[in-house]
Amino acid sequence: MTTHKKALTIDTINPNVLKVHYAVRGEIPNKAAEFEQQLHEGKNLPFDSVVWTNIGNPQQQPNLGQEPLTFWRQVSALTEYPALLDMPAEARDAMFPADTQERARELLEAFGSVGAYTSSKGVPLVRRHVAEFLKERDGHDEDIHNIYLTAGASAGISLMFQVFFGSGDGVLIPIPQYPLYSATLSLLNVEPMKYSLRSDHCWDPSDTDVRRQIDLAVKHGIKPRAIVVINPGNPTGSCMSKEQIYDVIKVAYEFDLAIFADEVYQVNIYQKERPFASFRKVLLDLRHSSDPTERDMSEKVELASLHSTSKGVAGECGRRGGFFVLNNFDADVEAQVNKMASIGLCPPTQGQIGVDLLVRPPKPGDPSYELYAKQIHNIHETLHQRSLLIAEKFNELEGVKADPAMGALYMFPRLHLPKAVADEAEKVGKKVDELYCMELLKETGICVVPGSGFGYTPRVLDDGSSYSYFRTTLLAKATDKFVERYVRFHKSFMERYKNK
Amino acid sequence: MTTHKKALTIDTINPNVLKVHYAVRGEIPNKAAEFEQQLHEGKNLPFDSVVWTNIGNPQQQPNLGQEPLTFWRQVSALTEYPALLDMPAEARDAMFPADTQERARELLEAFGSVGAYTSSKGVPLVRRHVAEFLKERDGHDEDIHNIYLTAGASAGISLMFQVFFGSGDGVLIPIPQYPLYSATLSLLNVEPMKYSLRSDHCWDPSDTDVRRQIDLAVKHGIKPRAIVVINPGNPTGSCMSKEQIYDVIKVAYEFDLAIFADEVYQVNIYQKERPFASFRKVLLDLRHSSDPTERDMSEKVELASLHSTSKGVAGECGRRGGFFVLNNFDADVEAQVNKMASIGLCPPTQGQIGVDLLVRPPKPGDPSYELYAKQIHNIHETLHQRSLLIAEKFNELEGVKADPAMGALYMFPRLHLPKAVADEAEKVGKKVDELYCMELLKETGICVVPGSGFGYTPRVLDDGSSYSYFRTTLLAKATDKFVERYVRFHKSFMERYKNK
Repeated sequence: MTTHKKALTIDTINPNVLKVHYAVRGEIPNKAAEFEQQLHEGKNLPFDSVVWTNIGNPQQQPNLGQEPLTFWRQVSALTEYPALLDMPAEARDAMFPADTQERARELLEAFGSVGAYTSSKGVPLVRRHVAEFLKERDGHDEDIHNIYLTAGASAGISLMFQVFFGSGDGVLIPIPQYPLYSATLSLLNVEPMKYSLRSDHCWDPSDTDVRRQIDLAVKHGIKPRAIVVINPGNPTGSCMSKEQIYDVIKVAYEFDLAIFADEVYQVNIYQKERPFASFRKVLLDLRHSSDPTERDMSEKVELASLHSTSKGVAGECGRRGGFFVLNNFDADVEAQVNKMASIGLCPPTQGQIGVDLLVRPPKPGDPSYELYAKQIHNIHETLHQRSLLIAEKFNELEGVKADPAMGALYMFPRLHLPKAVADEAEKVGKKVDELYCMELLKETGICVVPGSGFGYTPRVLDDGSSYSYFRTTLLAKATDKFVERYVRFHKSFMERYKNK
Repeated sequence: MTTHKKALTIDTINPNVLKVHYAVRGEIPNKAAEFEQQLHEGKNLPFDSVVWTNIGNPQQQPNLGQEPLTFWRQVSALTEYPALLDMPAEARDAMFPADTQERARELLEAFGSVGAYTSSKGVPLVRRHVAEFLKERDGHDEDIHNIYLTAGASAGISLMFQVFFGSGDGVLIPIPQYPLYSATLSLLNVEPMKYSLRSDHCWDPSDTDVRRQIDLAVKHGIKPRAIVVINPGNPTGSCMSKEQIYDVIKVAYEFDLAIFADEVYQVNIYQKERPFASFRKVLLDLRHSSDPTERDMSEKVELASLHSTSKGVAGECGRRGGFFVLNNFDADVEAQVNKMASIGLCPPTQGQIGVDLLVRPPKPGDPSYELYAKQIHNIHETLHQRSLLIAEKFNELEGVKADPAMGALYMFPRLHLPKAVADEAEKVGKKVDELYCMELLKETGICVVPGSGFGYTPRVLDDGSSYSYFRTTLLAKATDKFVERYVRFHKSFMERYKNK
């Protein structure tokens, strides 16, 4: 018998996997995890804790620690252990307001048990509630057949991209972008067609660049198939106007593209000038246009919109809940999505219950309303105030420009770093923002993600200095500590490199 | 502007998707769902309820309705709503035994919050407990770096196959098999190398056929990369002996294959002759062999073993929990699995908690032990008795041969159907078992899966009669009703076709 050679080596596995990059959980977060472990083991480091701001994970302990919404958790607990509904009335009613009991009974009736598989698209009752939510939000009815519950928005994207796209296809993605998109496309060997967001114009999409990228792709024999839009923006915190949304729909119509609208931050809006408008509303409103072309758009352009329980003010990431809705999709294409969803059996039941709670919050007059309203107001206000505070403190620094977030859960400050940083970065084989963020981590324990992790390549100016970005979440409970550590680091970093 | 053509049509989407078949949720279950909806709307059908036995979903209402394990649900409820731990002691202790409170506190300490993302591989505490479970089960230590928590075993297979395999590769799968495997391979354009299980030998794998399929694949330019084994068997209910497991390891060693051991039914064993033996134990035990080749096997053959919260006696499918453990994998290959896992962010937290409860059940002396032991005994006994009852009643029928399940949650009875069935099936473009199962559904509301849905092609004998199979779960609460309806149908079906 000959000796065994390993079946699975870096040379024999799927080569597309090697091309995948996912910086949100990449080199810097891995290093941060190492530091945390070392602190845990009593090692002496220049900081006493790691501050995780690399990922929108509001309930993470100990530094973020956003409190869960009480209403959500009461209903979830009752569905996990329905015997709580049969406790002595006094004890039960002291713990669980009447509306949480009612909601739990209704969900239990629909789910049978949270331990059972549901239909692959999710429980019909919850999908009906999603349809009502969409009607209320956009003013247009929805068929529950078009609604899929998912294990978070990521699972929805992964499912759909795998059904729709393959080698030779191209998909337009914004730059900077949440790297889920580039990673998923790499895995499928689909060409990422990178269109620029305009850093000097509130990170609005550049229609000109979208068209340029389509031209370019076609010239290279790539078939453009779809456009991804993240609104509110991740990592940029931008919000799109209705006019910009319309422009994307027009391009999609003109070039036979489907639209993927990642709208998971739709309630995270921190200004009044650009309220959230959904792609679905803008698209379906065109049904009533006097222009026949616009009516045709409204009936033809395929739109998949995604939402999630992980963001907003709930921040319930761990339960993995979300949904997508398909508009104008061919029935036989939808059937293929359904078939592939069924192989994964069903989304997690507590994620599905989370979606129900997301789309049907307590209403004024309900026993849970007052506390609920107070909690979401506080969370929202805290996020907004942190954004203002961070922007203010960052803008006092030489070489940092930070706009307060218009939406989403992130700040995306711009760094203007001296030539010596670029020189050093080149020497060590890193990008300037990677170098900066790694030094930030090593000196302060603050874990952020360099802008290049979102596909934004640092720009070198004529004098050798450079523009680059990093993303930090708005979620640090210990914002003051975060700001203090950051300011100290940045000053010393600039000092060091200016004099090199 | 030219008119818009749909971006996504059956002709433009990923062509591999069109090749995917998944009968467990295919035509027959879809028809059953239609019937259920019609009954709900008051339509008159030949039956008053659909009996779902197409999928191992023990807690499904109303026909299966296995009660959840109280210990599990108490701990889950406490982690969802930790304020329950602060209830007045008397009310709290009446609802939650001390060990459930202690477990919940320990898990909350490790998770921070069930609403937070965890590490992509799952919470280290739970993975440590999995390592202890593996040590206890197999007598060999495990490094927690090799352990991944997943959203059920399906998610683990899907993640790993996508990282490891692509066009030109071949993977050995048993026939009959759970169609997750063939479906996932189709999607990735990987050749399914189908090796036969021996219907006349307790569905044991045929070593001869495994070798024949390897030969055949190589002749066709396919590169054999791995072998999948399901033990206990789905849909067959078979159990492998240690010798058979050793034979698979030997073949894997000889032909440079990785092994995927789907062991999700490991506690569902209904006989003493073939107790469950894990691939991991058999492989790692060879470390102590006096034969250097066997020691080499033990150190080189890559083994991924999978387990789940969905089966066993817990049957907690809806929370989507499970794990896999990698033995003998290259570190850089493991790093790629980790990277791809991170894009999905993390497995659902209640699924992870389910894994903790699965691998750390209450021990004798714990406050929850007595009830827990009683519940698992009852569930196990019920499943066993149902298997015996169904086999007995089925075997009384002409043309049906049913062995009681040795393991897992299924019966896989053989049908011997007259020539007229084959003729009719050919006329309507179906396989004999598909025809049979569809008629069964239409007349009785019983939803089973035809054997061809597991890749077993019906065999036509010289006289035109045929052998085929179907799978039914052992889970019908209303087993009597199920058996009565089935017996009535089968007799009338045979009567009808014998006289054609």
